[in-house]
Amino acid sequence: MLPTIAWQDDAVVMVDQRKLPTREVYLTCTTPTEIARAIKTMVIRGAPAIGVTAAYGLALGVRRSKAAGTKQLTTEFLKDCDLLAATRPTAVNLFWAIDRMKHVFSEKVLAGASVEDLRQVMLAEAQAIHDEDVASCRAIGKFGGALVPEKAGILTHCNAGALATAGYGTALGVIRGAIEQGRTVSVFADETRPVLQGARLTAWELVRDGIDTTVISDNMAAVLMRQGRINFIVVGADRIAANGDAANKIGTYTVAVLAKEHGIPFYVAAPLSTIDMRTLDGDAIPIEERNRREVTHVGTTQIAPDQAKVYNPAFDVTPHRLIAGIITERGVARAPYTESLQALFDLSAVALAETGDAPVAAGAR
Amino acid sequence: MLPTIAWQDDAVVMVDQRKLPTREVYLTCTTPTEIARAIKTMVIRGAPAIGVTAAYGLALGVRRSKAAGTKQLTTEFLKDCDLLAATRPTAVNLFWAIDRMKHVFSEKVLAGASVEDLRQVMLAEAQAIHDEDVASCRAIGKFGGALVPEKAGILTHCNAGALATAGYGTALGVIRGAIEQGRTVSVFADETRPVLQGARLTAWELVRDGIDTTVISDNMAAVLMRQGRINFIVVGADRIAANGDAANKIGTYTVAVLAKEHGIPFYVAAPLSTIDMRTLDGDAIPIEERNRREVTHVGTTQIAPDQAKVYNPAFDVTPHRLIAGIITERGVARAPYTESLQALFDLSAVALAETGDAPVAAGAR
Repeated sequence: MLPTIAWQDDAVVMVDQRKLPTREVYLTCTTPTEIARAIKTMVIRGAPAIGVTAAYGLALGVRRSKAAGTKQLTTEFLKDCDLLAATRPTAVNLFWAIDRMKHVFSEKVLAGASVEDLRQVMLAEAQAIHDEDVASCRAIGKFGGALVPEKAGILTHCNAGALATAGYGTALGVIRGAIEQGRTVSVFADETRPVLQGARLTAWELVRDGIDTTVISDNMAAVLMRQGRINFIVVGADRIAANGDAANKIGTYTVAVLAKEHGIPFYVAAPLSTIDMRTLDGDAIPIEERNRREVTHVGTTQIAPDQAKVYNPAFDVTPHRLIAGIITERGVARAPYTESLQALFDLSAVALAETGDAPVAAGAR
Repeated sequence: MLPTIAWQDDAVVMVDQRKLPTREVYLTCTTPTEIARAIKTMVIRGAPAIGVTAAYGLALGVRRSKAAGTKQLTTEFLKDCDLLAATRPTAVNLFWAIDRMKHVFSEKVLAGASVEDLRQVMLAEAQAIHDEDVASCRAIGKFGGALVPEKAGILTHCNAGALATAGYGTALGVIRGAIEQGRTVSVFADETRPVLQGARLTAWELVRDGIDTTVISDNMAAVLMRQGRINFIVVGADRIAANGDAANKIGTYTVAVLAKEHGIPFYVAAPLSTIDMRTLDGDAIPIEERNRREVTHVGTTQIAPDQAKVYNPAFDVTPHRLIAGIITERGVARAPYTESLQALFDLSAVALAETGDAPVAAGAR
């Protein structure tokens, strides 16, 4: 398993993803402020990983607090929640994780927990989020892997891999799942301008796993599709609306349009924590715009003149009509998504425990 | 006019396009070998510019030759032709210019020209190719400019500008023509990975002309289309087949598919020297594959791991069904292209001289 993020000696250790693939450098964060900066500057990125990181950030704050009582701790905790929520706007897992930590915190405080109790409980909750994310990715890999053709040329965009999650990955989890199920797989990784997560991160973690991987510029995917060398497409998501519209890294919508033109199934892989039933459709998803330097420079090399304007949206929205299925840890949702996604949420934990495995949502077939 | 290429003191001077936009460095070539290297390494690029450069390269060879008689000069000249023809396979203007120079050379030799005569004639022919290219671009700008909406958001891909021609440009000629005809124009320039001709060259020459220009990563164009901010698309071409299929910089086909999805007219602008009636369709156009480093590195920054494979086709083919029109110096060809392109070639020079202007091909409406 790749060391995306780990809790070690009351600190959070993560690989600095800005420095990959040429340098494997680890960063240790000991305060919520350091965690917030790491998320904002993309030391760590990927919707599920951001959620796990934020949870650990809140645990860090509680554990390192010098608060004498729960009242002061609560004030500090809520400030940390606001700090972390302000880092990035699109990935809903961030808000989901913060809400979950908040919920546990307030329940425990109301039940009379001490500061020391909260130190234990909040870390345990962050670790549960971490563990569940890994389990979700494994389940996504199992469900998604079954959809992959026996001999597959798979295109993926950005990095929805071990590095974007607590491990194993969502879209790359599907690829890993397909290989575990005996499929023969060649992966084409869109480099994913401007931050190049595909070339830098996806290629790095796949070749590390010995998976056949070819890096292409984003604008080369169409040629491979036309040549018949791609027969399956899977990407991650930063937020999925109730109607199935999916925000993901800029360029994903282009891939989906190309998939339609060439008759190739286009899947989105994401845990339920990425599905935001309160966001009705893609138009309601806030899209982060990032700084011009990401476009005008690569490393220290300037590639555009100073006088040119730049537009740099970090994400785009793929409309649900272009999505063949949404692969989750509870099964594969199909259109109409408004019903099938709700059905996944309605599956009770009891039902899941009884079957001993994650079923495919009935409404999702 | 931008100094793309110039004949100065029996040498060819060109701006080194690899160093733009941060450094404006000029390279002087005095031999066909230096010219061939400049084309191969993309000091100069763009189909029309490559044609003009190759013609000057052949003139250089003849003028600098120490051959005592035409027989030896012919041997040297044919060797230079082969050398230049081997530089890049896709742009047909290269072969067109070499053929034209060969034709003049052999006609003159058969007519008993001396070595000294050939020195004059070959330079004059190269300069004619140069001058005609500028005139063609101006005419393309006039015809194409008339197609542009009054208030236009124009997307272009790669650089089909002054830097890709002897001056003014084909696709960027259309933009310049639209502005000269009073249109209000905002340009969105795809950066055009991997060699970044859009960010480095198109943005550089447009902002230099005071034209409103926004640089985007290739994978951002679809978002702008969906937002309604692009209502006209124009690109250049490296070779157009008899049926209208057009080879152009990698990524162009993606733009064309996105244009269809969003109902935006997609035009190709190119001189007749780019149309190869002997190439029946796009499948017959040879596509150059370039080295992996163009994809794995930007400047000195490595962006993909060594172990990953790379696929790097320099061009793709846009099928004629996605092309709204082909803008040439003799007018705008429309589908069915097999007829309309032939009609442009059939317009006699006499007819052109009589009307005093380049007519729109009757069969091309």
